[in-house]
Amino acid sequence: MHKYSIGVDFGTLSGRAVLVDTTTGEEVAVAVHDYSHGVMDEKLPDGTPLGVDWALQHPQDYLDVFRVTVPAVMKMASVVPEQIAGLGIDFTACTMLPVTAGGTPLCFMDEFKSRPNAWVKLWKHHAAQDEANRLNAIAAERGEKFLSRYGGKISSEWLIPKIWQTVNEDPGIYDAAARFIEAADWVVWQLTGGETRNTCTAGYKAIWHKHYGYPSGDFFKALHPGMENLVDEKLSRNLLPVGTKAGVISPAASKLTGLKEGIAVAVANVDAHVSIPAVGITSSGKMLAIIGTSTCHMLLGDTEKEVPGMCGVVEDGIIEGFFGYEAGQSCVGDHFQWFVENCTPAEYRAEADKRGIDLHALLTEKAALLKPGESGLVALDWWNGNRSVLVDVDLTGMIVGMSLTTRPEEIYRALIEATAYGTRMIIDTFEENGVPVEEFYAAGGIAEKNPFVMQIYADVINREIKISGSTQAPALGSAMFGAVAAGRAAGGFDTIQEAAAVMAKVKDYSYRPVAENARTYDRLFAEYREIHDYFGRGANDVMKRLKQIKKEARK
Amino acid sequence: MHKYSIGVDFGTLSGRAVLVDTTTGEEVAVAVHDYSHGVMDEKLPDGTPLGVDWALQHPQDYLDVFRVTVPAVMKMASVVPEQIAGLGIDFTACTMLPVTAGGTPLCFMDEFKSRPNAWVKLWKHHAAQDEANRLNAIAAERGEKFLSRYGGKISSEWLIPKIWQTVNEDPGIYDAAARFIEAADWVVWQLTGGETRNTCTAGYKAIWHKHYGYPSGDFFKALHPGMENLVDEKLSRNLLPVGTKAGVISPAASKLTGLKEGIAVAVANVDAHVSIPAVGITSSGKMLAIIGTSTCHMLLGDTEKEVPGMCGVVEDGIIEGFFGYEAGQSCVGDHFQWFVENCTPAEYRAEADKRGIDLHALLTEKAALLKPGESGLVALDWWNGNRSVLVDVDLTGMIVGMSLTTRPEEIYRALIEATAYGTRMIIDTFEENGVPVEEFYAAGGIAEKNPFVMQIYADVINREIKISGSTQAPALGSAMFGAVAAGRAAGGFDTIQEAAAVMAKVKDYSYRPVAENARTYDRLFAEYREIHDYFGRGANDVMKRLKQIKKEARK
Repeated sequence: MHKYSIGVDFGTLSGRAVLVDTTTGEEVAVAVHDYSHGVMDEKLPDGTPLGVDWALQHPQDYLDVFRVTVPAVMKMASVVPEQIAGLGIDFTACTMLPVTAGGTPLCFMDEFKSRPNAWVKLWKHHAAQDEANRLNAIAAERGEKFLSRYGGKISSEWLIPKIWQTVNEDPGIYDAAARFIEAADWVVWQLTGGETRNTCTAGYKAIWHKHYGYPSGDFFKALHPGMENLVDEKLSRNLLPVGTKAGVISPAASKLTGLKEGIAVAVANVDAHVSIPAVGITSSGKMLAIIGTSTCHMLLGDTEKEVPGMCGVVEDGIIEGFFGYEAGQSCVGDHFQWFVENCTPAEYRAEADKRGIDLHALLTEKAALLKPGESGLVALDWWNGNRSVLVDVDLTGMIVGMSLTTRPEEIYRALIEATAYGTRMIIDTFEENGVPVEEFYAAGGIAEKNPFVMQIYADVINREIKISGSTQAPALGSAMFGAVAAGRAAGGFDTIQEAAAVMAKVKDYSYRPVAENARTYDRLFAEYREIHDYFGRGANDVMKRLKQIKKEARK
Repeated sequence: MHKYSIGVDFGTLSGRAVLVDTTTGEEVAVAVHDYSHGVMDEKLPDGTPLGVDWALQHPQDYLDVFRVTVPAVMKMASVVPEQIAGLGIDFTACTMLPVTAGGTPLCFMDEFKSRPNAWVKLWKHHAAQDEANRLNAIAAERGEKFLSRYGGKISSEWLIPKIWQTVNEDPGIYDAAARFIEAADWVVWQLTGGETRNTCTAGYKAIWHKHYGYPSGDFFKALHPGMENLVDEKLSRNLLPVGTKAGVISPAASKLTGLKEGIAVAVANVDAHVSIPAVGITSSGKMLAIIGTSTCHMLLGDTEKEVPGMCGVVEDGIIEGFFGYEAGQSCVGDHFQWFVENCTPAEYRAEADKRGIDLHALLTEKAALLKPGESGLVALDWWNGNRSVLVDVDLTGMIVGMSLTTRPEEIYRALIEATAYGTRMIIDTFEENGVPVEEFYAAGGIAEKNPFVMQIYADVINREIKISGSTQAPALGSAMFGAVAAGRAAGGFDTIQEAAAVMAKVKDYSYRPVAENARTYDRLFAEYREIHDYFGRGANDVMKRLKQIKKEARK
């Protein structure tokens, strides 16, 4: 009788479960459940309005994912509960909420349900930007060493700014919260009945370090006197490395999911990071880029280095025993979408409509006819700031080389190339700082569906690109960790490396650089790099001054 | 009995006559005649195919303009031939043709009519680019001083490259041509029966200088041995200043036009330059910009200076007694048109169609809602190279400051602002080089029809802008010179200043800078200038390298 593992991936708008055969690695069933409340960015369920840049979620939606999808995959595959060895989950991050000591979300309680800070703050909740700015200023002033591990900046998307916003706006919620917890860890708590915390979200999102721990009480006190003992009072210093077991399915969770009590549940993980073993990466020197609206780059290293622009380096943060590095580009698919929405002429729309294809497909078709360099264009991929090597949100977009014969597809291709140059800049920066990048893997919507873009990436970075073999890489990775939490004796695996040998997948094709294209892109990348440094490293801060003038004009 | 003067303006696609009352200055009638042959850029009338970048015209079309429009305006205004004091003409330039000693165009002769080089080469004939490049290289190598009067470069549109092309491609035509002559001078010849040459086209287009004359025979010999004696054999050293009399209507011309024999004909002029007195400029310190698909800037000065990027400085070239300076921007209306055609989304087209307005009107409406600086964008207006201060056709477009919220109307406005910055750069460069610009006038389609653009120009250059009062400024200017050729005794004027006092016109409104906008544009212009110098003056020749890569890619 085959054994199975379940991975549950909690995304921004839905959650999905995948059921994987631990003998063959086959993904035998997938079930998706859309969150009833989606992203709440205008009002709470009771109509309470939200401010600008808020993005909340409803914890009940997460429970519903378990309730609906776990039984569904078992039923679809005709698998009985006895065949399930273990379960793992991954989540967006930092997505966090305040809960009682027993784990009840404050927003479930009548007295708090009309107060925005009682709800789940989704990763893309950006209303704590002021707090993040002040946190960074205070940390810089105090010479806090942790800043350099995060490329010099703590993001407004991360845990501490989000908690600080609560303190500032609704101290009653702060006081009432026995714990602030990642939604990732909270859903595991709902399965096992016990609170655990994972090293991945703590390391990447909560300024935790395996040896140095959290920032000091003095630092938290400098943010707000009431936060001095935040870690001991409302977080936890007890963290479990990813790949370990958080606990087992509780009686209540068994009722919710149909799973048998006692089966293993893995420590929580993050959607991006959990994809690393899903493509078979379990050792250093291999980078995975998840390419979608934005891109997340992850890489395992053998030593801890400070690399300009990395979003974080966390020991045991991705695979136990390695230093997990993370970097990112904040504007990739979004970039192309902006172009399609704002800069594509009516004739193109008409042609696309007539042929029943979308504008991306039409532009791709036209852009694919161009050779590298033929457009004469180079762009900087900073339409949403630079969160890579330069870590500077005040940088903006630039494009050079236009003539009166420049066509839309040439600009479209230039924007794609710009994101590829951005990726190459990240790779080069890691290598220049002592973290080798020997192999390159890609996952995510663009990696899986857009051969045109991926060939450009292969040509620009001059490396073979292997593509995730699963379209559900995060859920597959979670299932792998679920199998490891179960262990070999229970039908799983003893190590993530063993699990990867059976369950990890890449596609049977890859993108290989075309030598002639790579040569041309070497020349174009040299131009990108020079302009990148000119606009990005202080030679001409025109982008910042234009932003300042814009700000004044809008007053 | 009122007296009248006729101005005939020969454009690219048509010629027009305007009849002006010399007592009141009123333009009492206008008649237009479209050239039957238009611009011949694919084949000759007999079907002989033309090469890339050719643009020819048929001299018969010019004669037809006289035949049709001159009687028409007299008839429309019920004016009898006795009331016509004089006539002046202006033409596109350099538009040139080879003729016999008697003035017959070679293309009128059976033996030559199938040979492209026998025809009129229109100003925008660009097939002599190779010759222009070689001419510039040879002149630079020889240290020819004339180069600096033309911003360092002789254009392929000008006389000597066009003649040299004939020598290279069809020496039989060169040999058969008794004269090479500007079409401007040729049509005057057709009216008076005698060859004259004007200082305006000679100075701006044929490398002639009042004191130094033409380039030396040695220089011409260096181009081609057969051209050593070009000036003496096929041009003329006898040049008449604009504003003087070329001759009188001949019996043949009387028959062609219905004008009386013996009335005065002014020396030929160029369409742009002749507009200067039409707006009332007859003294130094006043710049006229003719703003259309491209922009031509003209300015009178009291002394001869070398100003970077000027297209030419010619003593007596615009108004006798002054140094006429010319500069230009090669991409203005074309720039906005490129944007509309390539970068405006289907939603905008649909909205414009629904409201029955064109896309320029819609974008203008939206862009007008923005404040200066609000877009956060700055562009370089080099989509068609820089032919202003930098004189470098290998420069290309650039735009900086885009974000994911950048809208089409913001880019549209940024492109308009870029052309205004380009104009300010020209003004500043003249002033920094000792040629003051105290007043600013504008004519041309954009100046007359687009208050939005003109207000931006006024704010950017921080000067009041007066607008040509006539929509036929070139024809009006020609009529003024016709009246001066006639003289006061015959019902005209003795000087162009006297003529301007009666006949010149500006509109009764002007565009005045808004102080707050001007302050913001000062800051934005500082950014433009820094980027202008970075990309344009050798700090980073990325634009040229991209052009080179593009050229190689297209091989």
